[in-house]
Amino acid sequence: MRYGYFDDEHREYVITRPDTPLPWINYLGNQDYFGLISNTAGGYSFYRDARLRRLTRYRYNDAPLDSGGRYLYLRDDSSGEFWSPTWQPTRRDLPDYTCRHGLGYTIIAATYQNIRAEARYFVPPNENLEIWQLTVTNQRAAAARLSLFSSIEFCLWDANDDATNFQRNFNTAQVEVSDGVIYHKTEYRERRNHFAYFAGSETLAGFDTQREAFLGEYRGWDNPAVVERGESTNSIAQGWQPIGSHHVPVTLQPNETRQIVFLLGYHENPPDQKFDPPNSQTINKRTVAPVIARYRDPANVAAAFDALRAHWDDLLERFQVKTPDVHTNRMVNLWNAYQCMATFNLSRSASLYESGIGRGIGFRDSNQDLLGAVHMAPARARARILDIAATQLESGGAYHQYQPLTKRGNNDIGSNFNDDPLWLILAVAAYIKETGDWTILEERVPYDNQPGTEQPLFEHLQRCIRYTLDRLGPHGLPLIGRADWNDCLNLNCFSDTPGESFQTTTNKDGKIAESVLIAGLFVVAAEELAELMERHVDDAGASVV
Amino acid sequence: MRYGYFDDEHREYVITRPDTPLPWINYLGNQDYFGLISNTAGGYSFYRDARLRRLTRYRYNDAPLDSGGRYLYLRDDSSGEFWSPTWQPTRRDLPDYTCRHGLGYTIIAATYQNIRAEARYFVPPNENLEIWQLTVTNQRAAAARLSLFSSIEFCLWDANDDATNFQRNFNTAQVEVSDGVIYHKTEYRERRNHFAYFAGSETLAGFDTQREAFLGEYRGWDNPAVVERGESTNSIAQGWQPIGSHHVPVTLQPNETRQIVFLLGYHENPPDQKFDPPNSQTINKRTVAPVIARYRDPANVAAAFDALRAHWDDLLERFQVKTPDVHTNRMVNLWNAYQCMATFNLSRSASLYESGIGRGIGFRDSNQDLLGAVHMAPARARARILDIAATQLESGGAYHQYQPLTKRGNNDIGSNFNDDPLWLILAVAAYIKETGDWTILEERVPYDNQPGTEQPLFEHLQRCIRYTLDRLGPHGLPLIGRADWNDCLNLNCFSDTPGESFQTTTNKDGKIAESVLIAGLFVVAAEELAELMERHVDDAGASVV
Repeated sequence: MRYGYFDDEHREYVITRPDTPLPWINYLGNQDYFGLISNTAGGYSFYRDARLRRLTRYRYNDAPLDSGGRYLYLRDDSSGEFWSPTWQPTRRDLPDYTCRHGLGYTIIAATYQNIRAEARYFVPPNENLEIWQLTVTNQRAAAARLSLFSSIEFCLWDANDDATNFQRNFNTAQVEVSDGVIYHKTEYRERRNHFAYFAGSETLAGFDTQREAFLGEYRGWDNPAVVERGESTNSIAQGWQPIGSHHVPVTLQPNETRQIVFLLGYHENPPDQKFDPPNSQTINKRTVAPVIARYRDPANVAAAFDALRAHWDDLLERFQVKTPDVHTNRMVNLWNAYQCMATFNLSRSASLYESGIGRGIGFRDSNQDLLGAVHMAPARARARILDIAATQLESGGAYHQYQPLTKRGNNDIGSNFNDDPLWLILAVAAYIKETGDWTILEERVPYDNQPGTEQPLFEHLQRCIRYTLDRLGPHGLPLIGRADWNDCLNLNCFSDTPGESFQTTTNKDGKIAESVLIAGLFVVAAEELAELMERHVDDAGASVV
Repeated sequence: MRYGYFDDEHREYVITRPDTPLPWINYLGNQDYFGLISNTAGGYSFYRDARLRRLTRYRYNDAPLDSGGRYLYLRDDSSGEFWSPTWQPTRRDLPDYTCRHGLGYTIIAATYQNIRAEARYFVPPNENLEIWQLTVTNQRAAAARLSLFSSIEFCLWDANDDATNFQRNFNTAQVEVSDGVIYHKTEYRERRNHFAYFAGSETLAGFDTQREAFLGEYRGWDNPAVVERGESTNSIAQGWQPIGSHHVPVTLQPNETRQIVFLLGYHENPPDQKFDPPNSQTINKRTVAPVIARYRDPANVAAAFDALRAHWDDLLERFQVKTPDVHTNRMVNLWNAYQCMATFNLSRSASLYESGIGRGIGFRDSNQDLLGAVHMAPARARARILDIAATQLESGGAYHQYQPLTKRGNNDIGSNFNDDPLWLILAVAAYIKETGDWTILEERVPYDNQPGTEQPLFEHLQRCIRYTLDRLGPHGLPLIGRADWNDCLNLNCFSDTPGESFQTTTNKDGKIAESVLIAGLFVVAAEELAELMERHVDDAGASVV
């Protein structure tokens, strides 16, 4: 069965059935604000770190599959019937459903009972927010009196804690509703200086912020009581499960089209300016108000989308090929470059299978991912290299992963994946080849983020080499440590404890198991470093060697 | 609105509406096999440890509320209509629905279109299995041709890993179906010597073990495709989400009643006898087969339920009061004793709010919980005391929690809740007062489970006292450490990092904050220990002091 095709003209993958065997996801966001979105609007959003700073709740491995997302409901107020233009969560029969996964945006459209609706989701470049842009058209011969309901479920920030620690979390939720904007401010009073907001472009008939009030008892997202009834309850969450939902009445004449915008965003205030008035518990909205106001204006939304297109044009035009083969052209010029940016951004910390909880950014992974994106985003690659290097240990070794929010090495996973350090050399070499920016080698970077340990990046690279040379086995080949790039070998791990991860098993201090892969990688990395040393001349014109 | 009442005669709490604002749960199991069950059959089961050895999957904080459980579906094969006698997950209108939470069992019953069905769930004493005993009666004037479907979703053992590590877990599921029994054996081939099984008393028309095959694409438990169609697919799970479902055809004449039994169990084989034949990957069923055979016979099921009743009669008759007040009698004689056994068994490691993941058994909690149950289960209390004491540190301090499966202290939470050790004295004193068993004081118990550190329990108790005396503050009162019984004080914790648990924050080495609560507790514990020392004489008749 065919589920979709590639539309080269629009640079979009088009999915023509909602019930794909697995959700087909796209990635939104570019710098700090990210989202995953499936072909039926499932998924979640986060700021920098999918575990520690998650904005919205999502349940992996749920039944029905892919439950929870950026859901809209349209209700015909004459009949009481309601549906979702993204198919989920109501799952009505939508014969002309299409989903278009584009470059940093997703458009899902469908017609139901002659009401056409198209939802465009995207994150503008350099903003910490996402836009849901809904276009509704009445294709009936008569006027249509509709109600539109938005919905999102807020995550209580730390996605792992949010999914396990109910004794505490059911007591913590706090929201604020002001001028039609729903603010999620759990823990803002205490240890956080950030909040989420969910706003819309329209005047509201009502809102909801308490999940049970919106859904009704023992109901799912497929059948919310508020949507069924056509009337919000204006609930204010105090504990339990905070959500955001707006109710927008929409009356359309025949052939009339209307555009409605929702914004979901993340915002930080300076810790000493959190409240307004200062001794209250009311969020200081002075810095977020202009952001919200900007995107309530459809002209600015359109401009933001144009900026997103321009952003991708700029990235992609750095390297284009023209071959007789349409598939090669598409892969090289577009799709592979796009995928490389996605992995550069998230380093597989969050995906259809990575829950965003179990791991952060991989040391090895991120050095590799950078190779495919350095020509598109050299400045960000530079910053990433310095972040990675700052998690290196003084031994030359590396934490296997680090958290993107804190930029600290992850102790739960630990170190001793003996190939890890060598990848840093490849990443730096690729960066210099691409940019000619030799100054990166002189950047002073700490070890394990410890102030006072700063040394030039060049020294870090030499420790990578030394780390391998200090760990040779009986045949003079590099010891594998816990594992090399072939994670499945895990030669040095001998766990027989059920449930224990091979990767987190305490490493036997084996001095025997060697890795041919690391040996090969060492040769490549050593040659790269040797050439860097040969070519690199210091400011006085002398070779640094 | 009234949701239920207490039925003193049957010693049951009766819930008369399924849509209670929160699930009302009961606890099944007594020794090693436990289950939580809500008034609509939601919940999950585990062997000893709700995190490390979970048999079935459950999603806390889901929408619809309380999704996942021990679900049965009845289907009228003439009309194709189907429903669940426990209300969930199909949520049909069931006017005569009742749930009876009894002592270690739950009965949920309802009539739909003149088909009466009653499901009784319980765990027999001293068995690692639960029984679902369904009684179906045709109250129609004509014969009824029905299909019965059972369903359970298997958890891949470690509930935390199961809910986060999809990259790995979607590849691991393994089942075996033999003689109508569904065996869940994920990782049995590798590092486990245990499996789960789901069996029934009847000849099957079919079965399913793959969730997507049973539910159908993008469907929930409220509307499985297999039930809708009335035909199983005989799916064999390989990876993804293993489930168990049996299809039992049931034709009933007017007024005919039939009883159908399902068994869900946990079984271990000796590590060197896992397979049959030995060099195969087929489970060796020689030791589990007699267990399954026993409970396929309704007479044995009835006997097991009688044994459960006798077990509770025995526990409760140890202490009975008769007062003029029915509420006092009920509380003292029945409900408080029952609750005390539940906390003794699980020590709040799993409940409606404790997800079974975030914590194990509390050191303080378990010493306290024991006080209410020691007269009912003195032998188990003795074993628990020794388990707890074996997690004590040589300093006299205590891990705040330990995992019931491994009996090891939980490093994630750590130590320095300065009231913890003193509770051990109260527990031991209560045990000796109840039993007169002074030998417990001579039991040799290690510190931190380290072989070679064994000392008499009496020495452990003295270290508890010394621990407090070694940690006095400026006023001569005990230092609080991280916290005392009033967890909310947390005086010595100064985290300002969002998302960090106060309890797991690295403790500032404060020498100032004192606890009046610990001071009072110390006086009580010291007096108890002094009296123990005075009264205790050794085998030669001399006082040990």
